[in-house]
Amino acid sequence: MKPDMASIRWHDHHIQRYQRSEQKCQKPCLIWFTGLSGAGKSTVANALDKLLFDQDKHTYLLDGDNVRHGLTKDLGFTVQDRIENIRRIGEVGKLFVDAGLIVLSAFISPFRSDRQMVRSLFSKGEFVEVYISTDLSVCEGRDPKGLYKKARAGDIKNFTGIDSVYEAPVSPELVIDAGSLSVEAAAQEIFNYLRARGYV
Amino acid sequence: MKPDMASIRWHDHHIQRYQRSEQKCQKPCLIWFTGLSGAGKSTVANALDKLLFDQDKHTYLLDGDNVRHGLTKDLGFTVQDRIENIRRIGEVGKLFVDAGLIVLSAFISPFRSDRQMVRSLFSKGEFVEVYISTDLSVCEGRDPKGLYKKARAGDIKNFTGIDSVYEAPVSPELVIDAGSLSVEAAAQEIFNYLRARGYV
Repeated sequence: MKPDMASIRWHDHHIQRYQRSEQKCQKPCLIWFTGLSGAGKSTVANALDKLLFDQDKHTYLLDGDNVRHGLTKDLGFTVQDRIENIRRIGEVGKLFVDAGLIVLSAFISPFRSDRQMVRSLFSKGEFVEVYISTDLSVCEGRDPKGLYKKARAGDIKNFTGIDSVYEAPVSPELVIDAGSLSVEAAAQEIFNYLRARGYV
Repeated sequence: MKPDMASIRWHDHHIQRYQRSEQKCQKPCLIWFTGLSGAGKSTVANALDKLLFDQDKHTYLLDGDNVRHGLTKDLGFTVQDRIENIRRIGEVGKLFVDAGLIVLSAFISPFRSDRQMVRSLFSKGEFVEVYISTDLSVCEGRDPKGLYKKARAGDIKNFTGIDSVYEAPVSPELVIDAGSLSVEAAAQEIFNYLRARGYV
């Protein structure tokens, strides 16, 4: 057999998207957590990740810890860079969904247009927007990294919720107030949503 | 329980990298195919992907089809953009490896420094460079997309192998001549390498 003939034949043997999904016994999607700093996005996302993993689901979590110093490390805080930052995270999420995974992302992503851009990359049902709606007062009271304090003092500029706007989602798939729910309950509510709709 | 207390406790419950690897019964890595246009990178990568998938391994393939019009669509063909293109693919590969997958990538990636940069993102053993060493004459004879013809005619500039250099790897993990091996044999050889070293 000539290699070039083999090439032609083998190019038809790409593993299909549905095969990866079937292998993993799940419907892949990107679960996009959005909300203020300190709202509990990463915390709830990690708790959900654990719930899913304990059910032998195949997941991954994108957050500042694994994205900021790698894929988006060339980006700063201009408007253009902010948009590009969210775009890249969305595109990577799309690759993970194509790979059959349930991928969770936890970024403030304060602007509707940015989140809408990400949603537009996906087919219906593949993008699950989870608004962690914890009140600003609760977030500021927690202030786990001392960022609100710095923002109030003017040491950080354009801080979401203080001197930069947070645009709450109009029609998110889920709204979770992590100021009144425990983390376990919040994660379970999202898990129940995914189970009810056949993602897991 | 106060939510902020829960936050602190739950943050210790990140799913660890080894857990994702154990779940998938494999040692994750990035298998980086490099070689001339038409050498058979994508073809062999797809054949290997199928071999791995048929063994119930969890894989994904990054190539021009799923990266060019998404994650790297803002990039052109300047030296800087070329470097950034490879960097992003490397960073995404790193995320997939962190997620426990065996990820295959198929890009010409003609420059040693770019490939070395990607290798440097990974721990020892996580980056497997596979040089598809098919002769230029064979690649040009195949010319599946008619690109060599255009490059010879001067309609495409800076085409690797014609008027831009291809820097062959000095110490790749594997060298595969897809001009003399069948695609099946080439894929099997890489599979055997992975099995012998405990990746699968």
